[in-house]
Amino acid sequence: MTLDVPQVPARDAAAAAAAGARQALLTKPAGALGRLEELSVWVASVQGLCPPRPFQRIRVVVFAGDHGIARAGVSAYPAEVTAQMVANFLAGGAAVNVLARQVGATVRVVDLGVDTDTPAETGGYKIRRSTNRLDVEDALTLAEATAAVGVGRALADEEVDAGADLLIPGDMGIGNTTACAVLVAAATDQEAAGVTGRGTGIDDAGWMRKVAAVRDGLRRARRVAEDPLALLACAGGADLAAMTGFLLQAALRKTPVVLDGVVSATCGMLAEITAPGAHEWWVAGSRSPEPAQRSALERLGLSPILDLGLRLGEGTGALLAVPVLSAAVATLAEMATFSDSGVSTSG
Amino acid sequence: MTLDVPQVPARDAAAAAAAGARQALLTKPAGALGRLEELSVWVASVQGLCPPRPFQRIRVVVFAGDHGIARAGVSAYPAEVTAQMVANFLAGGAAVNVLARQVGATVRVVDLGVDTDTPAETGGYKIRRSTNRLDVEDALTLAEATAAVGVGRALADEEVDAGADLLIPGDMGIGNTTACAVLVAAATDQEAAGVTGRGTGIDDAGWMRKVAAVRDGLRRARRVAEDPLALLACAGGADLAAMTGFLLQAALRKTPVVLDGVVSATCGMLAEITAPGAHEWWVAGSRSPEPAQRSALERLGLSPILDLGLRLGEGTGALLAVPVLSAAVATLAEMATFSDSGVSTSG
Repeated sequence: MTLDVPQVPARDAAAAAAAGARQALLTKPAGALGRLEELSVWVASVQGLCPPRPFQRIRVVVFAGDHGIARAGVSAYPAEVTAQMVANFLAGGAAVNVLARQVGATVRVVDLGVDTDTPAETGGYKIRRSTNRLDVEDALTLAEATAAVGVGRALADEEVDAGADLLIPGDMGIGNTTACAVLVAAATDQEAAGVTGRGTGIDDAGWMRKVAAVRDGLRRARRVAEDPLALLACAGGADLAAMTGFLLQAALRKTPVVLDGVVSATCGMLAEITAPGAHEWWVAGSRSPEPAQRSALERLGLSPILDLGLRLGEGTGALLAVPVLSAAVATLAEMATFSDSGVSTSG
Repeated sequence: MTLDVPQVPARDAAAAAAAGARQALLTKPAGALGRLEELSVWVASVQGLCPPRPFQRIRVVVFAGDHGIARAGVSAYPAEVTAQMVANFLAGGAAVNVLARQVGATVRVVDLGVDTDTPAETGGYKIRRSTNRLDVEDALTLAEATAAVGVGRALADEEVDAGADLLIPGDMGIGNTTACAVLVAAATDQEAAGVTGRGTGIDDAGWMRKVAAVRDGLRRARRVAEDPLALLACAGGADLAAMTGFLLQAALRKTPVVLDGVVSATCGMLAEITAPGAHEWWVAGSRSPEPAQRSALERLGLSPILDLGLRLGEGTGALLAVPVLSAAVATLAEMATFSDSGVSTSG
C-alpha cells in the first residue's frame, strides 16, 4: 500500500523569468540584495505573479502527537508536556504564538495523537493516543498512517480554501526528534549516531539512550526504507504522517510553504519522495542543530534562510524567516528602476 | 591631534541579569530560541529594562560622500551614481527606503561629501566635495576629518534627543569600499589583497586595479595606523568620519545600534579604538562578502545575525535584522512562563 498522488504542478516559469528580469532593472548593483533576489523570484513563481504581492494570510498549523519512545528516556521533558504545550498554544502563550503575532500570522493546533484528551479546539482529528515504542514495534498501523496522511491533506485543502497564501507546519510532541532521526536515517541510509541530536536539550547519558533507541528503531525501519507510508507507520506517528500529507497537498494546491526545523524537514523529505517536485513549493526557514534536519534538507536541495541556533520547533524557525520573504517581495515590488530614477547603470 | 571622548557607559547589568533569569522561566527548553535569547538579554541591557519594550522609533541615517579614488576605476559604477542615489533615497525608491518601511523605520540622508550639489533635505552638513585620491594624497585634511566626526556626533545627539531608540548607519558613496579596505588593513595590519572585495560587483581587472589602489593607499596609511582620526583623514572621507562620530556618540548616549555592511563595520572599528567599549552598544546585522567587514567585526568581537549575501550597504543589511531583534524582544516580553501555564519543567 503506497500513496497514490497526482503529479506535482510546476511553478510559474513566466513569472519567475519576469521577476529575474525586473531584478535587473532595480536601482542596485546586480546581485547586491543576495538571497533576497532569489527568494523574490521564488515568490513570484509560486504566486504566478510579477511583481509578487505581500502575503495576506499566513497560517501556522501545529501538528501535535505523543511518541511512545519518550518512555525510553530520550527527552529532557516528560511526555505530559505535549498536552500542556497544546494548552499553552491555545492560550496564546507559546513562542509560536508570539512570533506569529509579530508577522500577522495565525496559529491552528491540531491533535493527531496526544496521549490525553485535548480541548475541542484541536479539531477532533485524533487518530489514536500516542504511538507504540518504535524501538520494539510499529509506531502505528498502516491504516492509521494512511488515515493521518489523509487528515493532513484535508487540512491543507481547508487552509488553502480559506485563503491561506503561505503555510507553515509546526510540531509539538515529546519524543518526535527521535522518530525523525529514525525516518531520516532509514531514508538516507545513515547510522543512528550520525542523525541523532539533543532535541530539547538532553544530557550525554540521555543522548546515548536516544542513539540506542534510534538504532533499534532503524533496524526495524530499514526494511521499509523505500516506502514513505510504511516508514511513517513503522517509526513515525500520526502527527508526522499528517504533516507529510499536509506538505504534499500544499504543493498539489500550489501554495507556498516555509519549512521549520527537523520535523518539517523530515516530513518534507517523505512528501518529496512520495510526490517528486513538491519541494519546489517550499523554502527552508531556519537551520536547526539537529543533524537529521541537515540530511533531510540536503535530500530536498534546500538551504535554510536563517541560522540562529533555534531548536524549538512549533513553527518558530519558519516564522522568523517570514520577514525576509516579505522583504524580498517588497524590494522587487517597490524599488525604483534605473530608468524611473535616472540612476546610471554599471559600466 | 586625537579625539578626546568620555568613557563609554556600561550597559545595565541588572537588566541583563533579570532578562537571563526570565528566559529560564519561559515555556521552552533552555537555549531553544538560540540567538534570540542572547539578543533579548542585549536589548534589555541597552534599554535598562526587563522585559524590554518594542522599538518605537527606528532611524536610519545614510552618510553620503564621494571618493576621489573612484577615478582609479575601482567601482562598477561611475561616481555620479552617488548623487543619483541620494536623490533616489529622498524620493523613497531605494532598497533602504523599502526595507525601512517594512519595519516602520524612517530614513534620513546626510550629504557629507557628495561631489555635486544635493537637495536641501540632505542637511547642509557638507564638509567638502568628494575626497582626494587616497592612493596619492590625504583624502581629507585633519581639520576636515575632525569637523566631520563632530557632525556625526551632533547627528547622533539630534536623533537621540528626538527619541530614536534604535539607530542604523547607512552608507552611499561610489568608492567607499576601497577606502574601507585601506582603513581596515591599516588598523588590523593586513595586506591589500586580503581585505579587498568586489564592492558593487567589479570584474577581475577592476579588482586588480582596486587592490593596487588599496596597496598604494595602505603604504601611506600605515604611518598613522594607530590614530583613527589621522587614518580617516589619510584614507577615509567625511562620510566615514561622520559615521565614526555617529557610532561613538550613540554609545555615549546609551542608544543601541545595528551595524550594516563593510562601511559601518569599518567605522565601528575606528569608533571602538577611539572609545573602547562602544561596541557593547552595537550588534552586527548582516554578513557582507567584503573581507574587510569580517576583519573589522572580528576586531569588534561581533558576529552578524544574518548571512544572506547582501552587499548593498545603505543600511539594508541592518534593517533586515530588525525583525529578529523585535522577535527577541517579543518572546522575552510576551511568552508564558512555566508557572503561569502549568507546563512541566525538564526532568
